[in-house]
Amino acid sequence: MGRWEPDSRGRLETAALALFGERGFENTTVVEIAARAGLTERTFFRYFADKREVLFGGAGALRELLVGTVDGAPENADPLDVVVAAFEAAAAMLQERREFALRRQAVIAANTELREREVIKLALLAAAVADALRRRGVSETAASLIADTGIAIFSAAFAAWINETEHREFPLLIRESFDELRAVTAGATRP
Amino acid sequence: MGRWEPDSRGRLETAALALFGERGFENTTVVEIAARAGLTERTFFRYFADKREVLFGGAGALRELLVGTVDGAPENADPLDVVVAAFEAAAAMLQERREFALRRQAVIAANTELREREVIKLALLAAAVADALRRRGVSETAASLIADTGIAIFSAAFAAWINETEHREFPLLIRESFDELRAVTAGATRP
Repeated sequence: MGRWEPDSRGRLETAALALFGERGFENTTVVEIAARAGLTERTFFRYFADKREVLFGGAGALRELLVGTVDGAPENADPLDVVVAAFEAAAAMLQERREFALRRQAVIAANTELREREVIKLALLAAAVADALRRRGVSETAASLIADTGIAIFSAAFAAWINETEHREFPLLIRESFDELRAVTAGATRP
Repeated sequence: MGRWEPDSRGRLETAALALFGERGFENTTVVEIAARAGLTERTFFRYFADKREVLFGGAGALRELLVGTVDGAPENADPLDVVVAAFEAAAAMLQERREFALRRQAVIAANTELREREVIKLALLAAAVADALRRRGVSETAASLIADTGIAIFSAAFAAWINETEHREFPLLIRESFDELRAVTAGATRP
């Protein structure tokens, strides 16, 4: 990552997403991505294991942020509040890269295998959050339930954010989605 | 499905799960499953497209039951109540096949690809339930949020059911999981 390759990663990402959008994920090669970015194939592999990692390489940072937020929350904080705060932090991170997120989402939506990979990514994030909750003393079942609920809130807010036309920011939409869930569960009449 | 093959499907399922448990899913062939069941390979393929379908062939019936319950609920019923009722119905169906469900779960837990397939199955069920809610007039975002919340309740209850030592039945555990979610969301203090 010397000076002679300013933001190689960013250029590779931009080139990859442009090509995925133009000709489809499956019809794009690493050679083409590198060429479009004005870099070598070798440089590509310094940043990404394969072309799919351009789309999914961010999962590690997302997991660290989620787990770090849960781990760092005050001891007596309500577990669902903690999880929502973690997803708000994740949403703020994604808000910084809205253009990337939108293009990435369009590529994923167009490809069954990538959609499945995204579903699995979210399930792994939920499992990591549930583990973090258990470390805080939350029971086995409640930890999964709360983490999965966090993912449900996040997914609904993400769908709203992707289609957002009024420039409302992702963390705000997380809050709205959470409020909606609270209203929905309070409204349910089952004894 | 003539008289000369009494419960061929059931025999194939039993044989397959026994073999998957003994030697692993990946090390079991269709020929072996058919032989263990005392049937031909050709009979196997009359019931299942491949060995994976022994584990996932029930998804269609589950989806029909979930969607049918949502579609058939009273017009003014609370959407989350409707979804929970649908998962209670699904849980009652699975309760009838508890032995099969336990063995199946053990096989899936031991194989990454199968675990991923199970995650995707649940996501597809959630999408089908969300579509059914939209047909009832529930908004785009709320439908996904409520359906995903239903899956969260179902998954937590399933994990509890699989580990259940007091013979509590799956539908009851759905109810308990729902009550827990209500308590969790009511307890969250975020404004």
